[in-house]
Amino acid sequence: MDNVEKKWILSHVDHTLLKPECTAAQIEALCGQAVQCGCASVCVPPSRVAAAAACLKGGLPVCTVIGFPNGCMTTPVKVFETENAIENGAAEIDMVADIGWMKEGRWAQVEEEIRRVKAACGGRILKVIVEACLLNQEEKKAACRAVAAAGADYIKTSTGFSTGGATAEDVALFKSQLGDGVKIKAAGGISDFQAARELLHCGADRLGTSRLARLFLEESGAER
Amino acid sequence: MDNVEKKWILSHVDHTLLKPECTAAQIEALCGQAVQCGCASVCVPPSRVAAAAACLKGGLPVCTVIGFPNGCMTTPVKVFETENAIENGAAEIDMVADIGWMKEGRWAQVEEEIRRVKAACGGRILKVIVEACLLNQEEKKAACRAVAAAGADYIKTSTGFSTGGATAEDVALFKSQLGDGVKIKAAGGISDFQAARELLHCGADRLGTSRLARLFLEESGAER
Repeated sequence: MDNVEKKWILSHVDHTLLKPECTAAQIEALCGQAVQCGCASVCVPPSRVAAAAACLKGGLPVCTVIGFPNGCMTTPVKVFETENAIENGAAEIDMVADIGWMKEGRWAQVEEEIRRVKAACGGRILKVIVEACLLNQEEKKAACRAVAAAGADYIKTSTGFSTGGATAEDVALFKSQLGDGVKIKAAGGISDFQAARELLHCGADRLGTSRLARLFLEESGAER
Repeated sequence: MDNVEKKWILSHVDHTLLKPECTAAQIEALCGQAVQCGCASVCVPPSRVAAAAACLKGGLPVCTVIGFPNGCMTTPVKVFETENAIENGAAEIDMVADIGWMKEGRWAQVEEEIRRVKAACGGRILKVIVEACLLNQEEKKAACRAVAAAGADYIKTSTGFSTGGATAEDVALFKSQLGDGVKIKAAGGISDFQAARELLHCGADRLGTSRLARLFLEESGAER
């Protein structure tokens, strides 16, 4: 794959570091890599949003995660956490839906929670993580309907902290359900440019990964 | 091991279900098992606190988890989540400390966050999860000092969602650092009564596990 195509792929990447033990120095390095590679955003934990925003100074949007990764915080807490993240400089919000509610078929409650978080976003981009690896096919389709009805901007496959990550099959299923109405972010386990290209060709608009930017910089010798 | 000793061990157990995909029916079953076994509490996700409290009607305390499992929510969010959990009926709070701050040596900030969550607890029990599997020996000792200085009631070894769970070595280390000033909860990977006994003998006062109550009920034929 040539560098033009790699750069095109990187422009869809939320360059991501969500490890619980990540440090300020690692967040700063992440921001530098994302700028160098022309990524779509950096994605960092809520307690690192202010530092990332200070580092990027508006050069790239800061994305953060809400109710992450288990999704079973209450709705008021997810709303408060969203407002707090925006105060700290977050421009994009990736929230985790309540997986247990989905397993129980409480779709109206799932939808209402997304709607309330979207309202708290004040026009900013909201992505809804549905943790596809824990859902069956019918639940995945119902999740698409709830995310679309609630007015979210993206559906996102995975947290990267559960039993599985993004698959081409799930992205294709989401695309078939959502058309162009809701965009798709594929995240979790995306380890090389070939896998990334396949996910984009299946219908993903964003990719959540820590590896591609590092891989690109290593290959181009800009960083060891 | 005889049933008297098993019952003694069970009286130290926070009977726990924190899987993201857990359902209302599973939470209700958990509450029934905990009452039958004379456990210390049930430990459930924040979005399940109200249901567990309604189910137990004060018969057992409801414990929940704050900033769980990654610990990298902001301090205002952890405080708000604690207040919200208490409103919903939580009587015990297990918060996750910010692991990244610990790796950076920002111990004053770790301590101040614990102090603020403790204040939000209004006299209720606060346990602080330090995710021992991610810390080296010096960091574990510093974590003990921060938890004690902040006035928390317990230090807790693990979330059960990281690379390792409770070990006898960590419990013994915490005990050597903390004496009787701060109690110890061992959690994560406790799979049988022998392991539980060892952890209690090393100095643990509470155990976080889903397995012991189920094991006891299966053995005694009360439940398959």
